[in-house]
Amino acid sequence: MSEEFTVEVPVRYRDLDPMNHVNHAVYASYLEAARTDYLEEVATLESEDLSFVIANLEISYERPITTDDDPTVALSVTHLGDSSCTMRYEIRADGNTAATAETTLVHVDPETKRPSPIPDVMARRIREHEGLEATA
Amino acid sequence: MSEEFTVEVPVRYRDLDPMNHVNHAVYASYLEAARTDYLEEVATLESEDLSFVIANLEISYERPITTDDDPTVALSVTHLGDSSCTMRYEIRADGNTAATAETTLVHVDPETKRPSPIPDVMARRIREHEGLEATA
Amino acid sequence: MSEEFTVEVPVRYRDLDPMNHVNHAVYASYLEAARTDYLEEVATLESEDLSFVIANLEISYERPITTDDDPTVALSVTHLGDSSCTMRYEIRADGNTAATAETTLVHVDPETKRPSPIPDVMARRIREHEGLEATA
Amino acid sequence: MSEEFTVEVPVRYRDLDPMNHVNHAVYASYLEAARTDYLEEVATLESEDLSFVIANLEISYERPITTDDDPTVALSVTHLGDSSCTMRYEIRADGNTAATAETTLVHVDPETKRPSPIPDVMARRIREHEGLEATA
Repeated sequence: MSEEFTVEVPVRYRDLDPMNHVNHAVYASYLEAARTDYLEEVATLESEDLSFVIANLEISYERPITTDDDPTVALSVTHLGDSSCTMRYEIRADGNTAATAETTLVHVDPETKRPSPIPDVMARRIREHEGLEATA
Repeated sequence: MSEEFTVEVPVRYRDLDPMNHVNHAVYASYLEAARTDYLEEVATLESEDLSFVIANLEISYERPITTDDDPTVALSVTHLGDSSCTMRYEIRADGNTAATAETTLVHVDPETKRPSPIPDVMARRIREHEGLEATA
Repeated sequence: MSEEFTVEVPVRYRDLDPMNHVNHAVYASYLEAARTDYLEEVATLESEDLSFVIANLEISYERPITTDDDPTVALSVTHLGDSSCTMRYEIRADGNTAATAETTLVHVDPETKRPSPIPDVMARRIREHEGLEATA
Repeated sequence: MSEEFTVEVPVRYRDLDPMNHVNHAVYASYLEAARTDYLEEVATLESEDLSFVIANLEISYERPITTDDDPTVALSVTHLGDSSCTMRYEIRADGNTAATAETTLVHVDPETKRPSPIPDVMARRIREHEGLEATA
């Protein structure tokens, strides 16, 4: 069974904008902080070997995040294709959903920068963690 | 007829990430730089009175942006509701589409933080600029 | 006796630059994250009432910070004047000094934006925490 | 005779903090944007070959920068050593000095990361641009 993957991302003063809330673009950096942790811990990908590029990002903002919140990001992989990977996120602050989000990543060959299959060992680790069935 | 609204956003070294490309979250700040310019110039909204909050953001990444590019952001309003506003963006770099994006903004009352109608004068200016028909 | 004030600031992927190290400007945001925590916890200043502006910043960089480090910032007040405050910082990463820094803050009247005396109660709390003598 | 090197750095909404001013840490990124331009244009250093690390940064803040300012950064090299380089900066906004700053850079060997002499051709170009005398 899959276990929820969560990362705490403390708010920094620099994250705030003139509305005194965490700026909406910073949410994407919170997601990224969680994603790089996930890829290191679950898929055991070294950050210097990071070989995923982001193809699509969507964020729905539910409520503002303030400096007194202690946000956490929950992340799960909802689809694992041959060379792509879809992740769902929920940013929680003060016990509430502050935002939900989804990203599509494409695995690329570090040399050619062309899409390339996700290595088997990495795909297996992600499937095991998420409780996903192997596709055929 | 509507005239395209574009803003130049020079790349800063701080925008780059370990892949030596503009980090994907920074694209959202490029969109925001264009949006605040638009709201000031077209809708003549003073930045200190900024009364729109972002409800949804979607970005499709087409190609990386590097330090040698001189990106521009083109922005248009595709839908203007009673208290919401949908904008489409294209980030261009080196003559190509680097990304397309869409945001949904909600106009809020600065006091109550509740959705509130977009002021008539602002809505009219946006419609005139965009060549949008008034709804009813 | 004074007790060291330290804050953990986890590295985010967005902090890294093309050298794969935390960008030098981000160190200033790490210091700021520690400083705003200090002012809230020690001086019990609410962040929305933040009435200090920064007059001077100096950072000496000793070694790079990487994504695998878990940096902490140690902060102490070394001088407390009538309307100014000098803080010393040490950023530690992986058991070593990554940087030392100093900032001079000026307390300003939120209305006039002119320098104004640090409120007595705040000055007393800082002196008590730091083991500083009251100046006459 | 030396010609002043200046770079325009348009303010982005993301640069602002809850005080509605450009955040103090962002000044360091403005300096860096000017510095990387200088190293490319004057010293003809390709950004991917960037082989300077920053050893020391000092910024004196004179006045806030707001979203309506169009800041420029003026940069000059005040000292060129065997493997180090000192730069002075002035950030101007709305016709006034917003900040002055100084950085010390150290040239490093990209392989060993140890200090190494600044290549002759680069040193000569900087000296010519700045009107600096060669040191013996």
